Amino acid sequence: AAMDPVNVMEYQMVAKEKLPKMVYDYYASGADDQWTLQEARSAFERITFRPRVLVDVSVQDMSTTILGQKVAFPICVAPTAMQCMATGQGEKATSRAVASMNTLMTLSSWSTTPLEEVAKAAPHGARWFQLYVYKDRACTERLVRRAQAAGYKALCLTVDTPRLGRRENDVKNRFHLPDGLTMGNFLDLVQAEMPTDQKDSGLAAYVASLIDPTLNWKDVEWLKTITNLPIVVKGVLTAEDALMAVKHGCAGIVVSNHGARQLDYSPATIDVLEEVVNAVRGYPIEVYLDGGVRRGTDALKALALGARAVFVGRPVVWGLAAGGEEGVRKVLTMLRDEFKLGLALLGCQSLKDINRSMVVTPADRAKTAVRARL
Amino acid sequence: AAMDPVNVMEYQMVAKEKLPKMVYDYYASGADDQWTLQEARSAFERITFRPRVLVDVSVQDMSTTILGQKVAFPICVAPTAMQCMATGQGEKATSRAVASMNTLMTLSSWSTTPLEEVAKAAPHGARWFQLYVYKDRACTERLVRRAQAAGYKALCLTVDTPRLGRRENDVKNRFHLPDGLTMGNFLDLVQAEMPTDQKDSGLAAYVASLIDPTLNWKDVEWLKTITNLPIVVKGVLTAEDALMAVKHGCAGIVVSNHGARQLDYSPATIDVLEEVVNAVRGYPIEVYLDGGVRRGTDALKALALGARAVFVGRPVVWGLAAGGEEGVRKVLTMLRDEFKLGLALLGCQSLKDINRSMVVTPADRAKTAVRARL
Amino acid sequence: AAMDPVNVMEYQMVAKEKLPKMVYDYYASGADDQWTLQEARSAFERITFRPRVLVDVSVQDMSTTILGQKVAFPICVAPTAMQCMATGQGEKATSRAVASMNTLMTLSSWSTTPLEEVAKAAPHGARWFQLYVYKDRACTERLVRRAQAAGYKALCLTVDTPRLGRRENDVKNRFHLPDGLTMGNFLDLVQAEMPTDQKDSGLAAYVASLIDPTLNWKDVEWLKTITNLPIVVKGVLTAEDALMAVKHGCAGIVVSNHGARQLDYSPATIDVLEEVVNAVRGYPIEVYLDGGVRRGTDALKALALGARAVFVGRPVVWGLAAGGEEGVRKVLTMLRDEFKLGLALLGCQSLKDINRSMVVTPADRAKTAVRARL
Amino acid sequence: AAMDPVNVMEYQMVAKEKLPKMVYDYYASGADDQWTLQEARSAFERITFRPRVLVDVSVQDMSTTILGQKVAFPICVAPTAMQCMATGQGEKATSRAVASMNTLMTLSSWSTTPLEEVAKAAPHGARWFQLYVYKDRACTERLVRRAQAAGYKALCLTVDTPRLGRRENDVKNRFHLPDGLTMGNFLDLVQAEMPTDQKDSGLAAYVASLIDPTLNWKDVEWLKTITNLPIVVKGVLTAEDALMAVKHGCAGIVVSNHGARQLDYSPATIDVLEEVVNAVRGYPIEVYLDGGVRRGTDALKALALGARAVFVGRPVVWGLAAGGEEGVRKVLTMLRDEFKLGLALLGCQSLKDINRSMVVTPADRAKTAVRARL
Ligand SMILES: Cc1cc2nc3c(=O)[nH]c(=O)nc-3n(C[C@H](O)[C@H](O)[C@H](O)COP(=O)(O)O)c2cc1C
Ligand SMILES: Cc1cc2nc3c(=O)[nH]c(=O)nc-3n(C[C@H](O)[C@H](O)[C@H](O)COP(=O)(O)O)c2cc1C
Ligand SMILES: Cc1cc2nc3c(=O)[nH]c(=O)nc-3n(C[C@H](O)[C@H](O)[C@H](O)COP(=O)(O)O)c2cc1C
Ligand SMILES: Cc1cc2nc3c(=O)[nH]c(=O)nc-3n(C[C@H](O)[C@H](O)[C@H](O)COP(=O)(O)O)c2cc1C
Repeated sequence: AAMDPVNVMEYQMVAKEKLPKMVYDYYASGADDQWTLQEARSAFERITFRPRVLVDVSVQDMSTTILGQKVAFPICVAPTAMQCMATGQGEKATSRAVASMNTLMTLSSWSTTPLEEVAKAAPHGARWFQLYVYKDRACTERLVRRAQAAGYKALCLTVDTPRLGRRENDVKNRFHLPDGLTMGNFLDLVQAEMPTDQKDSGLAAYVASLIDPTLNWKDVEWLKTITNLPIVVKGVLTAEDALMAVKHGCAGIVVSNHGARQLDYSPATIDVLEEVVNAVRGYPIEVYLDGGVRRGTDALKALALGARAVFVGRPVVWGLAAGGEEGVRKVLTMLRDEFKLGLALLGCQSLKDINRSMVVTPADRAKTAVRARL
Repeated sequence: AAMDPVNVMEYQMVAKEKLPKMVYDYYASGADDQWTLQEARSAFERITFRPRVLVDVSVQDMSTTILGQKVAFPICVAPTAMQCMATGQGEKATSRAVASMNTLMTLSSWSTTPLEEVAKAAPHGARWFQLYVYKDRACTERLVRRAQAAGYKALCLTVDTPRLGRRENDVKNRFHLPDGLTMGNFLDLVQAEMPTDQKDSGLAAYVASLIDPTLNWKDVEWLKTITNLPIVVKGVLTAEDALMAVKHGCAGIVVSNHGARQLDYSPATIDVLEEVVNAVRGYPIEVYLDGGVRRGTDALKALALGARAVFVGRPVVWGLAAGGEEGVRKVLTMLRDEFKLGLALLGCQSLKDINRSMVVTPADRAKTAVRARL
Repeated sequence: AAMDPVNVMEYQMVAKEKLPKMVYDYYASGADDQWTLQEARSAFERITFRPRVLVDVSVQDMSTTILGQKVAFPICVAPTAMQCMATGQGEKATSRAVASMNTLMTLSSWSTTPLEEVAKAAPHGARWFQLYVYKDRACTERLVRRAQAAGYKALCLTVDTPRLGRRENDVKNRFHLPDGLTMGNFLDLVQAEMPTDQKDSGLAAYVASLIDPTLNWKDVEWLKTITNLPIVVKGVLTAEDALMAVKHGCAGIVVSNHGARQLDYSPATIDVLEEVVNAVRGYPIEVYLDGGVRRGTDALKALALGARAVFVGRPVVWGLAAGGEEGVRKVLTMLRDEFKLGLALLGCQSLKDINRSMVVTPADRAKTAVRARL
Repeated sequence: AAMDPVNVMEYQMVAKEKLPKMVYDYYASGADDQWTLQEARSAFERITFRPRVLVDVSVQDMSTTILGQKVAFPICVAPTAMQCMATGQGEKATSRAVASMNTLMTLSSWSTTPLEEVAKAAPHGARWFQLYVYKDRACTERLVRRAQAAGYKALCLTVDTPRLGRRENDVKNRFHLPDGLTMGNFLDLVQAEMPTDQKDSGLAAYVASLIDPTLNWKDVEWLKTITNLPIVVKGVLTAEDALMAVKHGCAGIVVSNHGARQLDYSPATIDVLEEVVNAVRGYPIEVYLDGGVRRGTDALKALALGARAVFVGRPVVWGLAAGGEEGVRKVLTMLRDEFKLGLALLGCQSLKDINRSMVVTPADRAKTAVRARL
């Protein structure tokens, strides 16, 4: 039997071999120079641990709650569009795998499977719905009501995509939905079809024609008039916007740069997480992080810097491509096991034991030097 | 049909294939170790954004004025010599392309086309004339008067070239003007011919014999006696010289290291822009930047750090080589579109919304660490 | 005759050629991304010297004491498991070589030779015993008593291994003890056998089933009830734990990250040595360092930053693989000679002359800049 | 005709092709990991310029004095041993070339030509004699008296070589003097012969048996009793030793790490130059720098940071190997011309115009950030 991948990076290699180039490129790419994509990994590498020893770590509790929903470990699934390109069962496979691992899945507005079917695939799974606001607000409203009706427990409002970032491979590949696939949440509507464009990514054209670039904080208030689901804003990178989220009654913030697919030279999320955490300290809002999490130790770093949980995007897609539902389970198991081992080696018995003094950031190093001097 | 380049770097690759080595090398090279050439790109990469979200970015106004002339977006064209080596129509092609994009062109003293013809090629285009001061001051004076007469709206005085920087490829290639081309602004004069030198770049020999190495601030006063065009000094890299420019009544400053072609180990311009901007704050003088701008996001960074506009040199040459007038238009369109997308993703409706807090420089990072400490 | 290796890195290359891949990988690997493994070398490279000149260095005394035992030079041998995989005589070869060089050896609990035989191989050698605490405390107690009886002079208690770090090559190789070898300290006991695991490193499975993950500071007190050997805690990386070691009466601390084999993204030991040294200054406890020492100059840096001695792990294994007992002697001789030459070139006559002002760390550089300013 | 090298690095490549491997390696190598060797270049690259513009640079005076001797430009020749291995005429070729360029040569104690012949080869050249102190003090004294008699104007006392640094290539090559060559200053003496060693560099063995490792500051006083030549200590890297040099009446200091051939991980000289310059400010002592100078801009940086002149070692050897006397002249001409061009582009009319504000060091960058904050 072929050798199983031993880490998430190896799952990516398997996926690269299995997937058509156009699909792999869509999943893998970042915007422009892909600087932020690389930086996501580099930034995690610049953070080191201060492990404590001689603590009884025979038992470890990794569970926590995410907006009140219990998860078995603090690594959740970020919304990624069009999962049926990766494997036949697409979002349903993800849904089953995530539920079986007792963590939380976010379903993309751009699912290739209707949200109701994704929910039915794993009725007891914890689930959020990621919302893109369409110019057609009636269409948007219907989507929100369906998500609530189908048992999604929060709206994850993506705020970093008034226009689509430029991913050069998608431009070159004239990216489009493969035959037979549609945007599954909009059957028979114009929003179901992605245009093919002779000069550009079809998805960029789709966004330009259908997604609302006027979206602003007032629309958060509007959303609250049509649903009572808690709202999580996804794509905040500054203290200023974090405070706006508090002011507008959001329940959560995902510190995210959209997997480096929107504005290139956005910072690595792990580098601005603390700015956001510090800004909202004391307010009733949860802070999460996504972007570049590939190791259990990355999640540990994010938690030590104040995130309640992390979300992973591409790793799930690589799992799907490599082995469908079982592949996703393997990837999540791997991340969970790495996280658990790291927790033990840090000297922690539960998430409560993870604290700020267990990591050293580049800024910490600079401070130490100055403190030593003054 | 062959694939269109999707970014400026790919235009450079096309140009490299199309041009004779001697010509490509002349356009591409920096001085000595070419450290400053590389550094130009690295320095931009070290600056990250702080994008704001949930701002209505459905409409975006990129227009501004440059010494009062309106441009459609803040990316102008730097003077680059001898453009007929790149394409038959040379400077006339550039002139038409730039005018059609509603931005500003600077014509080099070392144009391979007479300045009057360049003006006539696009009568309504916004245009500056770049001045090299010749030892022969009468010749220089005639040049200035002709530029004013032909409708050039400012003199861009290059101050970093008392002698020509040493570009080793030009030395090896014994760089010279290809047969049939001359310095078009000096027909029938000694200044029209570039010597061929058996041991050196012909252009270096040209400069040594004809350009005035005594040029100093008093000559700025002299220039004001022969023209009433505003004077923009190009090649300032320090606060001290920026204040001298103010003192001598200059209307603008281009923070420039001559595309890394003069003194190697000069800093990247984006790294000293703020020093210059801070020095002249409050004075009636505009500050621009050139050097290494290859992405719309580079221009955004420069504007956030206080530049009124940026200028591009080589990208225009690559466009010319790849596709003549149309090639220049494509390159400028690409930069404009990248700039506009970046503006939207930063959460800006117009250039006025770009502010200092939207970028983080290496110095900012150091300061944050110290502030956290004190 | 083939060329002798001229440095430790070349010994590693020889070992790589001679050893079966499974064995070489086990010896060479670090955990996960092996970031900490690389960092160990990088961190030493970031430290520079301030050599003093015109000092009479005709005679140099490199000797010191380690918990009262005299050693000829301050480079000792760290415990590394299963040395019979490297050479037939395994730990006995090491024992003889180390004793002949008049330095100190630490024997691993996981020796492939009984501790008594290792002692007998070189009766007059200075020796410590490294202790892993087994779930079976009676077994552990027997081990401790045997070590004391056999003349080991301290217990080196490894505190960073409640679970085994994940070394991906060992997972891929399904690492197991080669036929004919056992854990020599546990003949006929369950602790002698390493399981073979169809999906993982056999050693990881061994640790999970037999080593005690509840180990904590109270067990240090327990150890003191069953032995009067001094206790050295190996694997401390923070000031907090260093003070715990003082509080619990330990005689020494090895600042160690287990050769980068446990928690990846632990810091390089040389980067945290000073934190530990400063924390325990004035207390009766010795501080040593291991991790990445490959040059005499590395040892000099550690001593200048406050270590009493350094320990080397892999270099000894490479020596064993390359040339058995003689190979170990050559490696240690090489390190000693490099150390001695460095001492002379630093302007030191003995270890007492090495002081903090002779090295410059990255933090020192930052401080200097700030001091210059304030 | 083959292409002439256009920079010093290309001269090195020519030399590498021409010379036997043993000889090339001896000239090129640094000690141990050769970290300091690489660092010499990196450190220069980390320093940038602040060029001033609009200064009349039509005339430039590069001349200065070195301990009162006039030189045409501040780039002198460091002592390098055994130049007859590079070219038949060896040190005599260097002597003629250097004199013809009106700069200063330092002759090594380990010249392969008697010092008197070197002097006679170019009677009017400015010249220093580099001194190694032999255990045999009578022999040393004779050497000093001969140097003074032959018109050498200073003793350059090398203080960083109580033992020879370990250059691994020399160990591998069992470096020895090629047949027919001897240490030319010691004809018929034991000091003339370099041993061949079956396991080591012959030069290392030579130093160990003949050079005095007890050399210390008192010997500087002794030297003053046997000669009235001014004494320049070569190999100082700290403020402490710089002040010792002042105290013991030295006339000059060469900030040098012996071309990275002695203690590896010594700092780049350009990084510690300012420490030395600041320490001795106001005292009657000149400070020079050697190490890694390969560009005219390197020399400019050293002068801006306070050096009176720089010395070059290997570049001269590459010139010798590539073209004998003429080769040395070409290398020195190249460096002088680069220096002069840089001077112009910095806006300087003479060496007096070079000042501290014209360069920015890494420490300056850190300071700026902190200053901005406070
Ligand atoms: C292939 C792909 C599709 C994505 N689709 C969406 C989407 O539909 N909606 C959304 O808000 N974010 C989307 N994202 C962004 C992810 O939710 C998440 O922010 C990002 O992938 C996290 O980074 P990571 O991939 O490095 O884990 C997508 C990302 C990828 C890679
Ligand atoms: C091929 C070439 C020719 C140039 N010719 C001139 C010139 O004639 N006059 C001048 O002031 N600057 C000249 N420059 C410098 C440019 O105006 C400008 O400062 C530089 O190209 C900006 O950097 P960039 O090429 O990275 O955009 C030239 C630059 C290049 C690359
Ligand atoms: C092959 C190998 C086996 C090791 N076995 C043990 C062991 O049994 N017990 C222990 O405490 N440390 C063990 N270590 C860690 C070493 O004692 C030491 O901390 C580490 O090797 C030092 O780093 P270095 O190899 O870079 O010198 C082992 C390390 C290696 C490389
Ligand atoms: C091949 C070689 C031989 C040298 N011989 C001597 C010597 O005999 N005496 C001495 O003081 N320094 C000697 N040095 C050191 C040089 O004087 C000088 O410090 C060094 O070469 C400067 O660095 P550079 O080679 O990068 O210019 C030698 C250096 C080299 C490369």
